[in-house]
Amino acid sequence: MSKVLSRRDLDFLLYEWLGAESLTARERFAEHSRETFDAFLDVSQQIAERDFAPHNRAGDLAEPTFDGEKVTIIPEVSRALRVFAESGLPAAGMDAEHGGLQLPHVVQRACFLWFQAANTATSAYAMLTAGNAHLLLTHGTEEQIRRYVHPMIEGRFTGTMCLSEPQAGSSLSDVTTKATPQADGTYRIDGGKMWISGGDHELSENIIHLVLARVEGAPAGVKGLSLFIVPKRNLETGERNGVVLAGLNHKMGYRGTTNAVLAFEGAAAELVGEEGRGLAYMFHMMNEARIGVGSGAVALGYTGYLHALAYARERLQGRPVSGKDPLAPPVPIVEHPDVRRMLLASKSYVEGGLALVLYAAKLLDEPSPENDLLLDVLTPIVKAWPSQWCRLADDHAIQVHGGYGYTREYPVEQFYRDNRLNSIHEGTDGIQALDLLGRKVTMRGGAGLGLLLDRIRATASKAPAELGGPVLSAADRLAATTAKLWATGDPSSALVNATAYLDAAGHLVIAWLWLEQLLAAEGKDGDFYQGKRLAARYFVTHELPRIGPMLDLLDSGDTLLRDMDDAWLG
Amino acid sequence: MSKVLSRRDLDFLLYEWLGAESLTARERFAEHSRETFDAFLDVSQQIAERDFAPHNRAGDLAEPTFDGEKVTIIPEVSRALRVFAESGLPAAGMDAEHGGLQLPHVVQRACFLWFQAANTATSAYAMLTAGNAHLLLTHGTEEQIRRYVHPMIEGRFTGTMCLSEPQAGSSLSDVTTKATPQADGTYRIDGGKMWISGGDHELSENIIHLVLARVEGAPAGVKGLSLFIVPKRNLETGERNGVVLAGLNHKMGYRGTTNAVLAFEGAAAELVGEEGRGLAYMFHMMNEARIGVGSGAVALGYTGYLHALAYARERLQGRPVSGKDPLAPPVPIVEHPDVRRMLLASKSYVEGGLALVLYAAKLLDEPSPENDLLLDVLTPIVKAWPSQWCRLADDHAIQVHGGYGYTREYPVEQFYRDNRLNSIHEGTDGIQALDLLGRKVTMRGGAGLGLLLDRIRATASKAPAELGGPVLSAADRLAATTAKLWATGDPSSALVNATAYLDAAGHLVIAWLWLEQLLAAEGKDGDFYQGKRLAARYFVTHELPRIGPMLDLLDSGDTLLRDMDDAWLG
Repeated sequence: MSKVLSRRDLDFLLYEWLGAESLTARERFAEHSRETFDAFLDVSQQIAERDFAPHNRAGDLAEPTFDGEKVTIIPEVSRALRVFAESGLPAAGMDAEHGGLQLPHVVQRACFLWFQAANTATSAYAMLTAGNAHLLLTHGTEEQIRRYVHPMIEGRFTGTMCLSEPQAGSSLSDVTTKATPQADGTYRIDGGKMWISGGDHELSENIIHLVLARVEGAPAGVKGLSLFIVPKRNLETGERNGVVLAGLNHKMGYRGTTNAVLAFEGAAAELVGEEGRGLAYMFHMMNEARIGVGSGAVALGYTGYLHALAYARERLQGRPVSGKDPLAPPVPIVEHPDVRRMLLASKSYVEGGLALVLYAAKLLDEPSPENDLLLDVLTPIVKAWPSQWCRLADDHAIQVHGGYGYTREYPVEQFYRDNRLNSIHEGTDGIQALDLLGRKVTMRGGAGLGLLLDRIRATASKAPAELGGPVLSAADRLAATTAKLWATGDPSSALVNATAYLDAAGHLVIAWLWLEQLLAAEGKDGDFYQGKRLAARYFVTHELPRIGPMLDLLDSGDTLLRDMDDAWLG
Repeated sequence: MSKVLSRRDLDFLLYEWLGAESLTARERFAEHSRETFDAFLDVSQQIAERDFAPHNRAGDLAEPTFDGEKVTIIPEVSRALRVFAESGLPAAGMDAEHGGLQLPHVVQRACFLWFQAANTATSAYAMLTAGNAHLLLTHGTEEQIRRYVHPMIEGRFTGTMCLSEPQAGSSLSDVTTKATPQADGTYRIDGGKMWISGGDHELSENIIHLVLARVEGAPAGVKGLSLFIVPKRNLETGERNGVVLAGLNHKMGYRGTTNAVLAFEGAAAELVGEEGRGLAYMFHMMNEARIGVGSGAVALGYTGYLHALAYARERLQGRPVSGKDPLAPPVPIVEHPDVRRMLLASKSYVEGGLALVLYAAKLLDEPSPENDLLLDVLTPIVKAWPSQWCRLADDHAIQVHGGYGYTREYPVEQFYRDNRLNSIHEGTDGIQALDLLGRKVTMRGGAGLGLLLDRIRATASKAPAELGGPVLSAADRLAATTAKLWATGDPSSALVNATAYLDAAGHLVIAWLWLEQLLAAEGKDGDFYQGKRLAARYFVTHELPRIGPMLDLLDSGDTLLRDMDDAWLG
């Protein structure tokens, strides 16, 4: 069995639960069939296992270096990305008019999870490039698409998103990078950007930076931000543009992906769309990146879980607590309840997280006002929940391995380090919490949350009462808590415990998706389906109750964190 | 303010809460006074900050290497250990008859925390040596004390504990290392040992290994284990004994401490005490090591918290949620509720953990049947609770730092990696859970747990009802849950959710110790005492409620983890 990801589970979620085949009834996907979906899944697994997984550790040990001239990365990375580009996967989801195959998002997501699970650092170059291309496909001109997107699809160019600056991380309203209009309609960019993943390297002929900057005289705050295309090299001459690599950051994990400090020094740039709408455009890429980050967290947790499970079945140690006969042979550690606790919890996190990211992806395939709204509400949860809980699966994977898991001779410690980033980049967990409680559940009079809760209740009503009941109650409580929090309309009290709200909503959503899986497994026999029933029961009975104290805190209206004096912290 | 540890907090806990000065009324400590205690605390801080902290990162970046001949470690480590030995700290707690100063355990513990917080990897050599020496002082002969312990006190020798083998980690009953009696009363040791911290290096003239092995013909299981002294070099000739370094393990963190695979090949050995009592003796060192591990977890969490707090007060980013005027200047991030949540939670974990380890240490200073029993019950909590929750403080420290925290340019990511080991070595968290619920709370008819709950109730009764009440209720619930779990006497059902029990008991104990601190701060003014009141309130109102669902699970008698089929895991 693959230790990268589970094709069996993907098939279950795609076909037995989400009915991905029915998408082929839609005009956009009419050329597709289960066979074409499976072909993409097959090739993704094959390339991920053959070209991505084997250098995962090498990329961690030999991280990119910068000698003042250029960035050196182990050659396996560019080879893997070339194979990826040649497979046709980068264009698979795009419109036929751009040479794409109009593969559904949900299948693309499933395919890309293989790469993220096999080698999160190498896959990040592809993910950023795809996000960049998708933004330009939506908001760029035909000319920009031809010049920038087509070479990205062909694997000749890569892309980045340049938002943060040393003084502007979570707070993009403080971006100071300046754009100066030129007589010919182009712009020059000056300023410093920070935390640019894939910001410099020699993996591609060119790097297309999408840069948030402020045109002189633009208003303060996010409304003054515009978005620019800044290529590393002039497309015609091949000469370097004014984009200087000021240094690489050295991370705890995710080491194979360069993370750069970039100085823009009179860099030639083209405007995307209209001035002043930069952040709105960027959120196109950002929302996709947030789902990508959540997916990456799922992928790393999933591979950690599979490694832990395989180890627990092989490793002999100890005897059952009842019957400690020292002469009895030791048992595989998977027989010890505490090891099972860690494995079953991990299974419930990673398979629940996988269901979440695929559900979100399918919403994109069936656009409607309802589905768009639902995706808006779910996005902060898709980003933050796996970043926290699928990371815990990697933590458990270390613990299951014991001392071995803490060594670099085993892969799980890298998964744990790599996964730690996902709670930080593309908006920290705390930012997601403010987004969920401060914007998403209040927008359109709470219609998005209402829709989500309706879907949760509909599922819970169909499930056996012993598992459906707790989920129904939790949905009702979340509705009441939300109303109570916003009753005063005062953000400073409503948002003070926003993280508890995100945590509670996240666990409720995953409990719902476990009921969905339970129903999809109904009446089916065999270990796989028994596993789904087991994990659904576990999640509802062992995990969902965690949210009780969170909702109690929110309901209490406690504002300790607002009212305290920070001088008391020590 | 020091970012290593807080002397103000140590003073509060030692003098205002635990009344450490009153120990000087005891004959053993009659030569001491607040002044001598303070002098040891001062020198510890000074050496820790001057000789240990500065090479913490260097020891991580340049981990020990083995060239087949000898182990190379950065020279700062041996210099620091030499200063430590020359300070007199290693002998400070020992009996006057062995050249010691009979410093109370609680003061020694406070002193040693400075070294663990400044540089956990370098301090580990000293900790292991101390544990080794203490075991021999208790169970060795006068001759063994003179030959082995005195050079350890002088800093010339270091010590290890050799328990684990590749096939015997958590399960010591499977130890197969063999001891063969010689005609002269000595033994020869043959076998392989694994995970030996400080197992080989050139930091000392000699390394004294304490080795668990089985004399031929001894019974199977732990009753057949004996304990042996195996020096790396013959004390008289200086020649190498049959102890071969087979390799070093490469860890995720804690890298500065060598971790060795050792092959014993006819190594000359002396028996400690009597044959067949090896594990009982080793538990002398093991219990001390478990408290040392808990202390190390506290120390790493504490320094992480102090770094995060300092950063949060400096770093400007964003504006309060009510009043997002983009022209307003950004505020220090310590003003954002979610950052305060992470800081206040961390404060409650690390100061609560510090109270726990000092409380445990003081029990050793006032030996009595009651105190010994209480220490027995508390030991698994002292080991496991900080390993989990003070590590979370390091996790929060990364998150507070944002992207910066994830880079190796800042120190917090190392604390996080280093602290991950503490849930594994000297008995995993899962082993501690079985120890607590399976042995400690049932021994002597539950007298130990009864004593602990009595103390908790006595404190809670004195605290303001709004905080004392929840702690009283939790103590009553834990008592009832414990009785219910063991009502059937069947370990396979009683122990199935042992980890939930350990987690619940741990949070209750910390809540109790926060009430203790609240009472010790009563009537005192100023930010420091306000901080104690704030954290006590936070822990009881935001943290203690977590245990509700844990106790619910335990009360439900759920045996899912025992009854499930592991084939269902996937």
